[in-house]
Amino acid sequence: MSQKPSLAKGTRDFLPEQLRKRKYIFNIIENCFKTFGYQALETPAMENLSTLTGKYGDEGDKLLFKILNSGDYLKDAQEEHLKSKDSIKLLSNISEKGLRYDLTVPLARTVVMNKHLINFPFKRYQMQPVWRADRPQRGRYREFYQCDADVIGSNSLQYEAELILIYQKVFEKLRIPVKVVFNHRSILYGLAIYAGREDLFMEMTMNLDKLDKIGKEAVAKELIKIGFESNKVEELLNLIQNKDLASYNFNEKSSEGVKSILVILEYLRQGGFDATSLVFEPSLARGLSYYTGTIFEVIPSNIQMGSLGGGGRYDNLTGVFGMPDLSGVGISFGAERIYDVMEELGLFPDGLDNYIKVLFLVLNEESHAFAFNLVMKMRSEGIASDLCPEPGK
Amino acid sequence: MSQKPSLAKGTRDFLPEQLRKRKYIFNIIENCFKTFGYQALETPAMENLSTLTGKYGDEGDKLLFKILNSGDYLKDAQEEHLKSKDSIKLLSNISEKGLRYDLTVPLARTVVMNKHLINFPFKRYQMQPVWRADRPQRGRYREFYQCDADVIGSNSLQYEAELILIYQKVFEKLRIPVKVVFNHRSILYGLAIYAGREDLFMEMTMNLDKLDKIGKEAVAKELIKIGFESNKVEELLNLIQNKDLASYNFNEKSSEGVKSILVILEYLRQGGFDATSLVFEPSLARGLSYYTGTIFEVIPSNIQMGSLGGGGRYDNLTGVFGMPDLSGVGISFGAERIYDVMEELGLFPDGLDNYIKVLFLVLNEESHAFAFNLVMKMRSEGIASDLCPEPGK
Repeated sequence: MSQKPSLAKGTRDFLPEQLRKRKYIFNIIENCFKTFGYQALETPAMENLSTLTGKYGDEGDKLLFKILNSGDYLKDAQEEHLKSKDSIKLLSNISEKGLRYDLTVPLARTVVMNKHLINFPFKRYQMQPVWRADRPQRGRYREFYQCDADVIGSNSLQYEAELILIYQKVFEKLRIPVKVVFNHRSILYGLAIYAGREDLFMEMTMNLDKLDKIGKEAVAKELIKIGFESNKVEELLNLIQNKDLASYNFNEKSSEGVKSILVILEYLRQGGFDATSLVFEPSLARGLSYYTGTIFEVIPSNIQMGSLGGGGRYDNLTGVFGMPDLSGVGISFGAERIYDVMEELGLFPDGLDNYIKVLFLVLNEESHAFAFNLVMKMRSEGIASDLCPEPGK
Repeated sequence: MSQKPSLAKGTRDFLPEQLRKRKYIFNIIENCFKTFGYQALETPAMENLSTLTGKYGDEGDKLLFKILNSGDYLKDAQEEHLKSKDSIKLLSNISEKGLRYDLTVPLARTVVMNKHLINFPFKRYQMQPVWRADRPQRGRYREFYQCDADVIGSNSLQYEAELILIYQKVFEKLRIPVKVVFNHRSILYGLAIYAGREDLFMEMTMNLDKLDKIGKEAVAKELIKIGFESNKVEELLNLIQNKDLASYNFNEKSSEGVKSILVILEYLRQGGFDATSLVFEPSLARGLSYYTGTIFEVIPSNIQMGSLGGGGRYDNLTGVFGMPDLSGVGISFGAERIYDVMEELGLFPDGLDNYIKVLFLVLNEESHAFAFNLVMKMRSEGIASDLCPEPGK
């Protein structure tokens, strides 16, 4: 009896042709990380659920793939949970492990576990798949790669500049024209103070982040709904139309942000960054609540598509694992989306498919043995080559 | 509240130093695969359980990591299985996916699913982790890498030779002295006929495979127990003391094996293989029942350790997925064990840890900006370099 084979929903095989293109992107990113002094780290696909749960919000917890305990997994199951068919309560009885959901939490875990082996600042990169039980749709998969670089254990702003320069180098090599949009969480915090509701900083931030999508009026409505005064909202939304950094010295908090950004800009100048592709955007928020300093995103400049990467500084990533006050800054590349942009713009170089340089074809058995000898000589010289198995075909 | 972080049992983090050594091995293997004209394939970590189950024997089925269905996984659970706490019967109600257990079954699945996209013979390599719910112990992990190369869709014996030559090239580069031990399943089959019990071929094979471990007498006992005549067993065990290939033309079946091996040896001679490191071993069986032709194993020659890899020809890998009669031949590298041998023999090259070539240290803030400019110039030239963040430290 034969069965019709299928892929698990939301997963993909990468056949050679597509994989060569993927590896072309990954290699450029990895080589750049290495040139900038970042070292590779790999963590396991499976993590204890105690490590993963509660780190990605309620929605994230739901999207974790959970692994059944091995053997008789029901042996510790509580009768009442079975009887009530309570999937949530039964979970802790039958599953202890989940699949990696991102590369950041495993980084925090490994830094804490290996703090005596690691020299700080620890500059690490990591390029591995992650798994999310999202509903699969075009461009969204249940298994996809993340490519991250982080610096852990230094407050120096040289690293913000360095990471932005990595973006520049990588996208230059990939030949994708991009802009780097940046902001500072202190400027956002300053805006909340300015609007009289410091306490609503997080909510304000989330709403400002939606400006592009839902427009100024809808955001204004939302802000008023959550408790901002309407005249303050108008002032706020007018203020952020102004993209001149110098105008953001309106209070102590926002000035902190401006000051940091000026230091970073000076590093970028020294590093040869093309200033015309840098864009200050005071409404840029980046949803993730763990950012505390400069934040940035990379946007393709000649094609309508979301960000190809983003990052920023965070101040307490390892706190949850018992190691407080360790500052870090990191970036991520959206490899799947970069692939789509490269395809759409036709940026993959010719010749990626020439995976062998020489192919021997022979007409009879006698010359076949001789050709085998020749092909082996070429391979010994490192020349990718091959020999057709059937003489005369 | 902080929690003490931990790794899932049987899994490992790879910190940079160790990862550089692992990548050193993987790179040598991958470059060799490429030079020989093999193309990379990647398959997802998660496969449908219908793809995995029943392919690795009962023991294998138990060692599969199963993934809980997402959402309310108990919604389709049958009351009776819950009531009786029947882990095995409940499984099909609550889990549809498992983690990749090896790279061979996914290869078969993908070849069948993509047969119209693939040019045969399909020479593919694959280097990805697999997961097994084995009891962890020294040198045995629940997540480990497999490195496979296979040729699908050709009967040509040039590929057996080619794959053995890959072993030679890789271990030469790694500087591990090895021997390649080989045999042919037809010779084993011929031995079963010779001993009068063709029907016990598989059982005989399994027992012969244990000669090294349990010795001649214990194997003799076993063979008699399963139904061989005792005088035939003595003859058989005496016969296989003889390592001269020419003596194995004792019946039609075994001669088939000898004939194939002679063709392969001629290819190996043409390919420049060092004949002194080739060892014919008529008791070599390789447990996996799917092999049908030549089989081989790589053994380190100057250190007591099991095989560092093995492979052989199989004739019906894709049959279970509805594509019969596709012949294939493949090899595997035991990357984890190769790592251990390299460590033990001190074979990792010096300088692997020099991941940056230049490190800038500066004494004050002013020279810091200047050094940042210099380090960026070096990086632009592709020189891995770095700059300490704290002047004067």
